[in-house]
Amino acid sequence: MSSSLSTFIQVPPNSDFTIYNLPYGVFSTLDNQKKRIGVAIGNEILDLSAILHLFEGPLLSKNLNVLKESLNAFMALGRQAWLEARETIQSILSDTNPVLRDDENLRKLAFVNRSKATMHLPANIGDYTDFYSSIHHATNVGIMFRGKDNALLENWKHLPVGYHGRASSIVVSGVPVRRPWGQVKADEAKEPEFVASKLMDFELEMAFFVGGKENELGKPIPIENIEEHIFGMVLMNDWSARDLQKWEYIPLGPFLSKSFATNISPWIVTMEALKPFIVANTKQDPPPMKHLHHSDDFNFDIELAVSIKPKESNVDYTLSKTNFKYLYWTIKQQLAHHASNGCNIRPGDLMGSGTISGPTPDSLGCLLELSWRGQNPVKLGDSGQTRKFLVDGDEVAIKGFCYDKKTNIRVGFGECRSMLLPAL
Amino acid sequence: MSSSLSTFIQVPPNSDFTIYNLPYGVFSTLDNQKKRIGVAIGNEILDLSAILHLFEGPLLSKNLNVLKESLNAFMALGRQAWLEARETIQSILSDTNPVLRDDENLRKLAFVNRSKATMHLPANIGDYTDFYSSIHHATNVGIMFRGKDNALLENWKHLPVGYHGRASSIVVSGVPVRRPWGQVKADEAKEPEFVASKLMDFELEMAFFVGGKENELGKPIPIENIEEHIFGMVLMNDWSARDLQKWEYIPLGPFLSKSFATNISPWIVTMEALKPFIVANTKQDPPPMKHLHHSDDFNFDIELAVSIKPKESNVDYTLSKTNFKYLYWTIKQQLAHHASNGCNIRPGDLMGSGTISGPTPDSLGCLLELSWRGQNPVKLGDSGQTRKFLVDGDEVAIKGFCYDKKTNIRVGFGECRSMLLPAL
Repeated sequence: MSSSLSTFIQVPPNSDFTIYNLPYGVFSTLDNQKKRIGVAIGNEILDLSAILHLFEGPLLSKNLNVLKESLNAFMALGRQAWLEARETIQSILSDTNPVLRDDENLRKLAFVNRSKATMHLPANIGDYTDFYSSIHHATNVGIMFRGKDNALLENWKHLPVGYHGRASSIVVSGVPVRRPWGQVKADEAKEPEFVASKLMDFELEMAFFVGGKENELGKPIPIENIEEHIFGMVLMNDWSARDLQKWEYIPLGPFLSKSFATNISPWIVTMEALKPFIVANTKQDPPPMKHLHHSDDFNFDIELAVSIKPKESNVDYTLSKTNFKYLYWTIKQQLAHHASNGCNIRPGDLMGSGTISGPTPDSLGCLLELSWRGQNPVKLGDSGQTRKFLVDGDEVAIKGFCYDKKTNIRVGFGECRSMLLPAL
Repeated sequence: MSSSLSTFIQVPPNSDFTIYNLPYGVFSTLDNQKKRIGVAIGNEILDLSAILHLFEGPLLSKNLNVLKESLNAFMALGRQAWLEARETIQSILSDTNPVLRDDENLRKLAFVNRSKATMHLPANIGDYTDFYSSIHHATNVGIMFRGKDNALLENWKHLPVGYHGRASSIVVSGVPVRRPWGQVKADEAKEPEFVASKLMDFELEMAFFVGGKENELGKPIPIENIEEHIFGMVLMNDWSARDLQKWEYIPLGPFLSKSFATNISPWIVTMEALKPFIVANTKQDPPPMKHLHHSDDFNFDIELAVSIKPKESNVDYTLSKTNFKYLYWTIKQQLAHHASNGCNIRPGDLMGSGTISGPTPDSLGCLLELSWRGQNPVKLGDSGQTRKFLVDGDEVAIKGFCYDKKTNIRVGFGECRSMLLPAL
């Protein structure tokens, strides 16, 4: 990838969606309600269904039917096809290529302004798994629930702890989320009660979509091949009802405290677009076992922030800034672990990182940590408001981007935003 | 349903698949590899794709397209349609109805011998949840891991504890299962190791498929309406690697110890067929909260057994006999709980019961309990063999049926059978 690409599309300064990015999403418009695959560029969406004839590479030209109403089939086609598609799209959008630049009629068909598009889930998510890979988050939560001496459980540094989540309730950014009812029991209460959750929280996460051919059930994917199965990444808000969680999670893990909704950002940034922002893996001690070991760096410098916009406000008050690079386990390790027992991993499966907290008090990824269980209310900028947990009408936005000062190249994720609606 | 129905199909004595049953499955044959929906009757399968024109009821006749390569769309159509289909099929198979009985050509097209059919998963399973609803199982496991005084955790009698499972690795009866590798740590070991599981177990479970219209995300399904969302039941073997489970499950629950494979029986017995076998619900103390309370009996007298056939043997050695009725929580309560936070429940979702153990030592649903963590090897009949945990080549079979002595009516599930293959 050259560092001096440019496109005939006007890309505003600080846009997440540069010619170096080219993330995939699924959209529809008022006048064409059919779901279709698009690529974000500046404020525009390149509608791939309008330019199928321009995919002339050996893999895509024979498989144009994969570019339809969800990304699953394209994900399944594998990494060589993803690279070929990226090259084609980058070329089509280049200001040196006349094919689209100089064809006004085709341009009219092929571009949709992002403000006019409704975004949908980019893929049918077969299974959703959430990991727990931030050592800072796991330690903080451990201190709160078990004290400093038992903060990190014995297995945590040996394997990337994770659990199965609910796929049906994953929705795209913009879809509001209803405060759930559920069983809770206060420490001092004798009996549990069924109430609307009082301890609503966000979790700043990222997640990756699986691609490549499904492995046969019973056959692990060696970590050497795991990159072929990682398609790209999104931002994720893993909404959590802390009071439901505390009461329900023993001994089988979180269930209804999470399954009421999870939002993801609509644009999947591919691993190829993220490669220039690779940084050193977090040092692991003890060293990972062989089936979880990879010698290449596969960690990413992605700047992340989470904000709350209260109902009556127009301002996103940033609560925390963190970075994907703080994660202890790499996504290669997560996926290799997941398949190490022979579990079959399907294109379109979603793998969450777990809450991404950094090492400092201003880089924590959820209110549980930021307010330390509600003991220290968090200020919303200069608004005079504070939050221990979320309030009805709060709009939570997670943003993320990579930026290279030297080359002035930016590759971003847009945002994952949604409002907390009052309980029914 | 009359108690004196009879069919022109010869149904062997003790067949699970009587005219009172009519379970749905998805099958294909060598000479027609297209997946299609069938109904089991005796040793035959009635191929619904061959008799679509006979569905003349108001709901089905307008929705014949739901009867295709999986049951999801039929499940989605709702309870009135299920009842109409049942009535139609029961009538078509009745020995008083000439339409199929006397049409030799149609009969040739419409019936396939079960021995000639390959069974497939009956539905695309969007999400799979496993509950933990046997008080005997939960108590036994609790005693083993936490001692008698803390056997049942504080929440257990207040809500049906459950967790999300892996949908991708659910396979139908007959598909063999590979012993997984995974991280384990013996109590006395300093470090974990990555090995083929040494403590392989089955779990005798049942599971139900969800039907009806998906509830809108954020809107619970009141328990008064929950029956509209329960389509039918199957047998399930929730294979478990106990050594992986012990090391991984804290604090987020079982993950790779379960996700390598789960087998279900291919024939879904509808709730309508099970109704004559309703028995009193298990008495619950404390009484369930309002949103989990239903006054009607919705417990079922289903006789269950699990056996092992060692590799070199032709005999299924029964290890345990138990009954679905021993469950503490009803499936209405399970599903109402699941949707109580507004989680959307989709047709085709699968809900497992958890291991079904009875109150006596010979009615336990897994080897962990039967051998009490391997302390008391279990005899395989008169074979001279014993089992603490499973041995490569063991074929585990779970069988289940309802039988009413008075009427001599039997409604059964067939079996859920599969072999444990050696580790790779």
